[in-house]
Amino acid sequence: MIDLNCDLGESFGPWPMGNDLALLPFLTSVNIACGFHAGDAMVMRHTVRLSIQHGVALGAHPGYPDLQGFGRRAMSLSPAEVYAITLYQIGALRAIAEAEGGKLHHVKPHGALYNTAAKDRTIADAIAEAVYKADPTLWLYGLSGSALIHAAEARGLRACSEVFADRSYEDDGSLTPRQQPGALLDNAHTVVAQCLHMARNHQVVSRNGRPVSLQSETLCLHGDGPHAEEFARAIATAFREAGIGMKAP
Amino acid sequence: MIDLNCDLGESFGPWPMGNDLALLPFLTSVNIACGFHAGDAMVMRHTVRLSIQHGVALGAHPGYPDLQGFGRRAMSLSPAEVYAITLYQIGALRAIAEAEGGKLHHVKPHGALYNTAAKDRTIADAIAEAVYKADPTLWLYGLSGSALIHAAEARGLRACSEVFADRSYEDDGSLTPRQQPGALLDNAHTVVAQCLHMARNHQVVSRNGRPVSLQSETLCLHGDGPHAEEFARAIATAFREAGIGMKAP
Amino acid sequence: MIDLNCDLGESFGPWPMGNDLALLPFLTSVNIACGFHAGDAMVMRHTVRLSIQHGVALGAHPGYPDLQGFGRRAMSLSPAEVYAITLYQIGALRAIAEAEGGKLHHVKPHGALYNTAAKDRTIADAIAEAVYKADPTLWLYGLSGSALIHAAEARGLRACSEVFADRSYEDDGSLTPRQQPGALLDNAHTVVAQCLHMARNHQVVSRNGRPVSLQSETLCLHGDGPHAEEFARAIATAFREAGIGMKAP
Amino acid sequence: MIDLNCDLGESFGPWPMGNDLALLPFLTSVNIACGFHAGDAMVMRHTVRLSIQHGVALGAHPGYPDLQGFGRRAMSLSPAEVYAITLYQIGALRAIAEAEGGKLHHVKPHGALYNTAAKDRTIADAIAEAVYKADPTLWLYGLSGSALIHAAEARGLRACSEVFADRSYEDDGSLTPRQQPGALLDNAHTVVAQCLHMARNHQVVSRNGRPVSLQSETLCLHGDGPHAEEFARAIATAFREAGIGMKAP
Repeated sequence: MIDLNCDLGESFGPWPMGNDLALLPFLTSVNIACGFHAGDAMVMRHTVRLSIQHGVALGAHPGYPDLQGFGRRAMSLSPAEVYAITLYQIGALRAIAEAEGGKLHHVKPHGALYNTAAKDRTIADAIAEAVYKADPTLWLYGLSGSALIHAAEARGLRACSEVFADRSYEDDGSLTPRQQPGALLDNAHTVVAQCLHMARNHQVVSRNGRPVSLQSETLCLHGDGPHAEEFARAIATAFREAGIGMKAP
Repeated sequence: MIDLNCDLGESFGPWPMGNDLALLPFLTSVNIACGFHAGDAMVMRHTVRLSIQHGVALGAHPGYPDLQGFGRRAMSLSPAEVYAITLYQIGALRAIAEAEGGKLHHVKPHGALYNTAAKDRTIADAIAEAVYKADPTLWLYGLSGSALIHAAEARGLRACSEVFADRSYEDDGSLTPRQQPGALLDNAHTVVAQCLHMARNHQVVSRNGRPVSLQSETLCLHGDGPHAEEFARAIATAFREAGIGMKAP
Repeated sequence: MIDLNCDLGESFGPWPMGNDLALLPFLTSVNIACGFHAGDAMVMRHTVRLSIQHGVALGAHPGYPDLQGFGRRAMSLSPAEVYAITLYQIGALRAIAEAEGGKLHHVKPHGALYNTAAKDRTIADAIAEAVYKADPTLWLYGLSGSALIHAAEARGLRACSEVFADRSYEDDGSLTPRQQPGALLDNAHTVVAQCLHMARNHQVVSRNGRPVSLQSETLCLHGDGPHAEEFARAIATAFREAGIGMKAP
Repeated sequence: MIDLNCDLGESFGPWPMGNDLALLPFLTSVNIACGFHAGDAMVMRHTVRLSIQHGVALGAHPGYPDLQGFGRRAMSLSPAEVYAITLYQIGALRAIAEAEGGKLHHVKPHGALYNTAAKDRTIADAIAEAVYKADPTLWLYGLSGSALIHAAEARGLRACSEVFADRSYEDDGSLTPRQQPGALLDNAHTVVAQCLHMARNHQVVSRNGRPVSLQSETLCLHGDGPHAEEFARAIATAFREAGIGMKAP
């Protein structure tokens, strides 16, 4: 059993992004932008509706307050500030989700906030606290083996360890930095092979050919890549054929 | 029995506004800015905490997305846009309120959104729908006799008719426009007299000396005026001496 | 001689918009978003560079401070506020244009600001004043026959009367509202015919078949329509074949 | 001869900050916020007017795009992004300054951008390039001995080395971090003594009593402290009595 998640609702105002409708049939959970790095109240409502129609698990995807930088630029917020903006964004999305008859299932931080929370335990704790205070039954998605997973568990939350379908890994289990050649897998065959290996064996083969152990409870697929739909379809097909169930935690 | 409300939490980032702490002892309900026209997640948390400590009823105070204009500049948003931003802001504040052990009691639109909702029934309906979808037991505060009160009642919400402690009225029951001389009452004696008359008789004496009927269920005091604290204290004292109970609806 | 202008640089952060590169070969002047309704400093720099490479006249395209609404939602700013935000945006774009070796040629307000300035003379005067104070030799583009054209002339600026290549007109010379069927011309043949008629005769045939007189000094083509590139090419070809010169004023 | 500068124009929308009018009589140059971390087009115009009336040298004070954090939170912008936002902000302020009959004299980065530019030479170079492209005759103010001063000189700009009137220094010439006790001098006598010593000897006595060499061409006074006006007056008086001239570079 594994979950396949994707970041959705990343349009803003007049600017569309991604092809949410094409991806939804293959996903089991989605992370919806909450207006700080992408998304706005109208986009959030639309995305929630589509997601409910497709029966996927709804997640809040809070980010840094940086539209222009799409939440991908690190910002030195204090733990108290991270706590407050995380809670704010969860609350906003939850109200919209519930108004449409949905129920919030999980939280996954976005971009630079996700990366900071993977390494900085005080920021990770602030996020875990915000999620806990919003609703202690929510799942918190974080990078497998990261400070965020540890913070979630320490706070008594249900943690969900994330691995990446379309990113290459280093020997130490970290993601190959995006600037490096080969960081993004661009071939459906490779992506499917990596996904199957991670799902079956909790292991990934690093860029250098070494086996690396991972907790793989949810697979993330990037929705903005040129092959997103093709990869989503290929992964879902491969899992079905391999008898691996797909389901949100 | 009457409610005395005030807009609080109107600081933003490094910029303080108002003297919330001085006013809170005299209030029975507060309207807390939600980040669109004022307030930010940190300010919201701080204001919620202070308000809970003082035992006042917590309200969301959603506004147009216009920090520079403080939500006082009319914006031509569609009803769908107003619905979405209202729900978003209510959700954000509710999450913060509940995380601090509080409970959201009411919603009152801010500034230009309040004024538009007083006259434009489609905008009023959009706000009422957002409040209803957020929580059908919430009170919706609106200008006495306005489209917003009618929309709230039509939607099955509990409406609370608002009158103003420190504003002068015209013969038709509208507020004297701020640009006119005498629009803002600047004398504690006059303010107290107007409040007592409104509380006892559901009536106000207009700027021209005519009696005007009003529903007065909640009294609004502006927190940013130079006399705010003095007026709040004088009103609370006068009500106590007159045997008029003060309580949120 | 006529000018063909288009709004460019309407991307923002991670969100692309339009196909500026495909349109530029056919244009003689461009209006570049300045960061308030679209565009950001990086997008502005990129758009200025492309525009200089294509030898088109550079214009600032200031708008209301409303990214989510793309500057298309009316906002009740005072004339003093409109003056200040217009001057601010012109200055920002001019610095970027000059740093790339370009020179600012004109200003054209965007969206709701353009529409308000077409009817409200005090807003039109505020814009004309800002343009004059920025540089009295700048051209000011405005709707043919509008308050903005009158304000520009009254201030001693060079006014450039704009007509629309791909919009239908009413009998009174106003644009058919976008919600009406037929408001947007979707056929290259019709667009070309309208452009030729406007360029040769300073006249347009209204939706009802009536001839309407217009000052047509610059033709605006919408860059975000599905046929933008096709229309631009067809107009430029038709003008060349008809011996009508294309040149910015 | 020394310059006394202060950050002005840090109000935003409805939120006042500082007491610019009280400080201006004692200053010789001012750094005016440009709308990204504080200030808006209306505030900028007002501040420019006041500054021109007082005959002080006008500076642009560009910052990170972070109103809520007041530009004091580090953000990981690329050099290209820093170049673009710096040029944008300089252009905006220059247009407003020139519209009021003023002339831009210098640029000083704000807050976290200032601190990053003090240490990171690629960011410092990006700022120097933006200033040079805006106008190669502008002065660039930076922390004495910092990467920004070196970058300015390397680019051929006129650099102005800044020291702080009301901050304590460490033995290595760095500022005592704000969190440390004694980081902010809170006594007019100490402030005046430090200023005189820096102005006469290009030296400061560190928190530990050691003499530290500094280039002191401009003295910065914080305008938002509780003693700002008192300190400004005391410094100006002491300099006059000591026969030290005050003048912008």
